[in-house]
Amino acid sequence: MPARGDHDARRRDVSEAVWRVLAARGFGGLTLRAVAAEMNASTGLLTHYFPSKKALIAYALDVADERTATRPQELPPKPGMDGLRTALTNVLPLTPEAAAMNRVWVSSWDGSLADPELGTRERNRYEGWRARLRPHVVAAIDNGDLPPETDVDELVATVAAFTHGIVVQALFDPGRFPAARQKALLDGLLHALQAGH
Amino acid sequence: MPARGDHDARRRDVSEAVWRVLAARGFGGLTLRAVAAEMNASTGLLTHYFPSKKALIAYALDVADERTATRPQELPPKPGMDGLRTALTNVLPLTPEAAAMNRVWVSSWDGSLADPELGTRERNRYEGWRARLRPHVVAAIDNGDLPPETDVDELVATVAAFTHGIVVQALFDPGRFPAARQKALLDGLLHALQAGH
Repeated sequence: MPARGDHDARRRDVSEAVWRVLAARGFGGLTLRAVAAEMNASTGLLTHYFPSKKALIAYALDVADERTATRPQELPPKPGMDGLRTALTNVLPLTPEAAAMNRVWVSSWDGSLADPELGTRERNRYEGWRARLRPHVVAAIDNGDLPPETDVDELVATVAAFTHGIVVQALFDPGRFPAARQKALLDGLLHALQAGH
Repeated sequence: MPARGDHDARRRDVSEAVWRVLAARGFGGLTLRAVAAEMNASTGLLTHYFPSKKALIAYALDVADERTATRPQELPPKPGMDGLRTALTNVLPLTPEAAAMNRVWVSSWDGSLADPELGTRERNRYEGWRARLRPHVVAAIDNGDLPPETDVDELVATVAAFTHGIVVQALFDPGRFPAARQKALLDGLLHALQAGH
């Protein structure tokens, strides 16, 4: 079925082109024209895929979700403090690829704050991320690495907030926030939370 | 000098209109057409003020800077932990007005990451913010509220990151992050940092 194969190949081309535009220019630079130029295709061809700007943005978010889910990352060890550290480290912009991915997500917030549907999608993404962090905190409490009185949701919200805040500072100022410093800051916070509750 | 007065009044009108567009639609929705509509003016009039999209964005960032500098905020008490808490609390989206202001800044990151000049401007804003937080941390160490071995720059980067991370989570999910919870999360972090180093 060559038509099917063509379709899949074309879809991959579109996804690749969308990602390159996002990584270079963010959502503010995402236009049919820019994607078409990346593909050496006509804008007309792309209007067939994306009848509206909103359809293009929704597709771009799908691409970003897929790239995020399938990115190379360290497998978290079993649930607990080390797993929490690994899961958060996997988010930090420690490599150029991870910086590009974070840059895409940070740039998506403008549009997501302006559109209720996209805002809901981002709210659910956040809740999904916090839900994936939670078992690590629960396990760390169970095995005594976090104080028994630790509030799981509060600790999860705190480390998630810290991590995204480091992401933004590091994207704007990679010179002041090299990978080693980002990791040291994360370690410092986790130590304080372990000892300080 | 009525011409001068007219000029100032018109400038205030433009600033007001730009701010209303930013608060409602973010930088992604900032166009000459949208600002003109807010002012019941012609797009032609505005091209006189803003010869390019970039000029409009730069002006909008000036407006956001000015609004941020002159916003109602609690005066931080003398330098120290309470001052640090107040300075960070002043950033959180605890009121609709503070949420609108944060929404404008978060939405500005897309364009600032795409433009080297705007990126430098945002990097300097961050460094300015951290510089204003630093004396509080130094004083807290001096008066024994933070452990003597505290690294000032690391603690400042950590609380700044945490605060902006809470801002983003709260903007997308105000239901899960009401004002009282934001403040409790900040208190929890500051306690951990005081005890945990």
